Amino acid sequence: MARSTACEARGAAGTRVEVAGWVHRVRTLGGVTFVILRDRTGLIQCVFERSPAAARLSCESVIAVKGLAVAEPRALSGVEVRADDLEVIAPAPGVLPFEVNTKTLRANLDLQLQERALSLRHPMTQAVFRVQAALARGFRRALETRGFLEVHTPKLVASGTEGGAELFPVRYFDRQAYLAQSPQFYKQMLVLSGFERVFEAGPVFRAENHNTTRHTNEFTSLDLEMAFIQSEEDVMVLHEQILGEMLATVAGECAAELDMLGASLPESGPIPRLPVPEAHALLRERFGWTSPPGTSGVPEINAEGERLLGDYARAELGSDLLFLTSFPTATRPAYTMPRADDPSLSRSFDLIFRGVEVTTGGQRLNDYDALVRSFRARNYDPRDFESYLNPFRFGAPPHGGMAMGLERLTERLLGLGNIRQATLFPRDRDRLTP
Amino acid sequence: MARSTACEARGAAGTRVEVAGWVHRVRTLGGVTFVILRDRTGLIQCVFERSPAAARLSCESVIAVKGLAVAEPRALSGVEVRADDLEVIAPAPGVLPFEVNTKTLRANLDLQLQERALSLRHPMTQAVFRVQAALARGFRRALETRGFLEVHTPKLVASGTEGGAELFPVRYFDRQAYLAQSPQFYKQMLVLSGFERVFEAGPVFRAENHNTTRHTNEFTSLDLEMAFIQSEEDVMVLHEQILGEMLATVAGECAAELDMLGASLPESGPIPRLPVPEAHALLRERFGWTSPPGTSGVPEINAEGERLLGDYARAELGSDLLFLTSFPTATRPAYTMPRADDPSLSRSFDLIFRGVEVTTGGQRLNDYDALVRSFRARNYDPRDFESYLNPFRFGAPPHGGMAMGLERLTERLLGLGNIRQATLFPRDRDRLTP
Repeated sequence: MARSTACEARGAAGTRVEVAGWVHRVRTLGGVTFVILRDRTGLIQCVFERSPAAARLSCESVIAVKGLAVAEPRALSGVEVRADDLEVIAPAPGVLPFEVNTKTLRANLDLQLQERALSLRHPMTQAVFRVQAALARGFRRALETRGFLEVHTPKLVASGTEGGAELFPVRYFDRQAYLAQSPQFYKQMLVLSGFERVFEAGPVFRAENHNTTRHTNEFTSLDLEMAFIQSEEDVMVLHEQILGEMLATVAGECAAELDMLGASLPESGPIPRLPVPEAHALLRERFGWTSPPGTSGVPEINAEGERLLGDYARAELGSDLLFLTSFPTATRPAYTMPRADDPSLSRSFDLIFRGVEVTTGGQRLNDYDALVRSFRARNYDPRDFESYLNPFRFGAPPHGGMAMGLERLTERLLGLGNIRQATLFPRDRDRLTP
Repeated sequence: MARSTACEARGAAGTRVEVAGWVHRVRTLGGVTFVILRDRTGLIQCVFERSPAAARLSCESVIAVKGLAVAEPRALSGVEVRADDLEVIAPAPGVLPFEVNTKTLRANLDLQLQERALSLRHPMTQAVFRVQAALARGFRRALETRGFLEVHTPKLVASGTEGGAELFPVRYFDRQAYLAQSPQFYKQMLVLSGFERVFEAGPVFRAENHNTTRHTNEFTSLDLEMAFIQSEEDVMVLHEQILGEMLATVAGECAAELDMLGASLPESGPIPRLPVPEAHALLRERFGWTSPPGTSGVPEINAEGERLLGDYARAELGSDLLFLTSFPTATRPAYTMPRADDPSLSRSFDLIFRGVEVTTGGQRLNDYDALVRSFRARNYDPRDFESYLNPFRFGAPPHGGMAMGLERLTERLLGLGNIRQATLFPRDRDRLTP
């Protein structure tokens, strides 16, 4: 007899079914035992008459149940299984680190992450990662429709894209290698290798010593790069389109998950733009906030500045989303294209979503000599970047791209409060297991 | 004026177009210059009357051309652009490491990989990676249709899945970490966390000192894991189905690429199965070949054995594909389920495609005590695997899965001869750049 999922069984009233999954809840009343079974599609009630074995079931045990599916208006979802056969596939202990069948998880985040195989069983946790998969699926679909090719670039690299400070070193046979901070150099090489439009959804690694609610040391980057753009504006317009399609995918495929998590989607469509010099002025005038200088020595909008700008966008522009544009060239990587009218500013942007940066992008330098000058101006030795720079000698079209953090996007969309709740198995300063 | 791709321009005879791309070939005859332009969609001919600038163009320069698209039966694809405007966006040098416009690339593999941004421009190289992307797309589609969830698991791990010999060490702040050889432990944890069906297409890392045509040290693994199986047979049946859908995706979306590469697809449908003990006997009797003992001490089918079995499957079974089943338990990882009728053999399989292993899979142990015994029997300390083993206490259903090497599969499908030709930027003993 083939196993039916809970969802299938709910549609099979009047037929004999076999369901299998985890024991979500057990209750015995006057010789009748009600077992709520949970599987990947949801819950279904199984009813046992005078079954000591069923009454003794511990929560989270894995069982298979055979019986007649019967319409029962009082039961969850309207159908229950009148059980005549119970198989205990894998019993769980009577006491668990925490219960899974509570409305919300009653365990702090540390314990949830330590006992990940248990916390992931909670329907609300499951919902987070179903939404995340829908976002990634929407990203791919939107780009494939537009002629972008999915690529797989190496994570083992000889040098970083933005200097060496944030790189994890790897012992690669008798040499030193690093983990890629970003597929940046590779996606650019692929664009100028004639693919023109490429994307990648893969892991990136940042050896940052941060311990914040918005940083982990390994995350999933949704990257794209495209040739023959006029300016960074083309990339921002594409971003508006693909984000709209990603949100539409979530809306279409995850309505139940959004409802369970009490999440609302941001509006789709054009996203307001604010040049960084204006953003600094606005922060000063409106919030009395002065951005402190960053590592580059010039003022940089930090987490608090982003939060305030998010508030401003929501209150004044009616938008959960805000593009910051024209970042000072000194604050962006060496491959960034400066603006022709004012080379101290660059053709770059960030996307702020509900007060947190989720995307960074821009137009890139595509002239070999300009690239070498830009690397030298930042005190990098161009010889260390030869395998990246060389291809620019052989005909490199204007191009640009962006990178979106999948976990951050998920966290903001669902209002989870900590990026770790949007990461299956987070990696941070203190966490390398499970 | 918006840029048209070569493909769009070929369908726009009678209108004014702008095309942009790389100079594929230049030829001047009696004052008329014919420039073949190449972009991501193909080639188009541009014709210039008395244009010294066009006549001087070097191959691989990036240009934009405006003019009237005209039906011209003698031209490539039937349409040419009668150019009245030429912009040289990025000139390429007159001499290149090798030409891109030859029928096949006239550069050895080493040089091709060193000058990757150039060798990737060749239409045949482009075709390889378009087929590869179609295979990955087909994999995802087939699994999403069947209720599998795409997941992203960490590549930074505290210990390996199969012992420590093939792990790259990473300095993770003040600790030692490793690069994941496989998402095996994580996909199992996700299955028993109630997701039941998960897949991942991501990088894996193997610190093997091999230098062969079928190994690299970083590759893309197409992984899946599923719960509530009866046996490894369920995984093999799923494999037949998804491989069929992957090949159908390639057939449907990459007909031109297959034609250019002279590749033929294998038959879809049921794949013959051969238990390993019978395979050893067949190799001895038919080919006089005795498999040497592997690291486990028992005979293991090596590359030559796989090649011979591929020949046998083609000649005797009329199949490019062959499942090897029932591998000796001692030759498989500790998490492998032994056969109940003969525990020295296991519920495991490999898929041999045209003489090379492209998939490995099987049913896994799902009982905590049996897992601990299996780890101990291999002289692993279960305490080193606590974060993997612990979740099996909390209700683990029967499950199994598989992992397919995307680059190997591409190589075999297209008959390229070396896995490096199916890898954008290969990583091997000697290669860490570009």
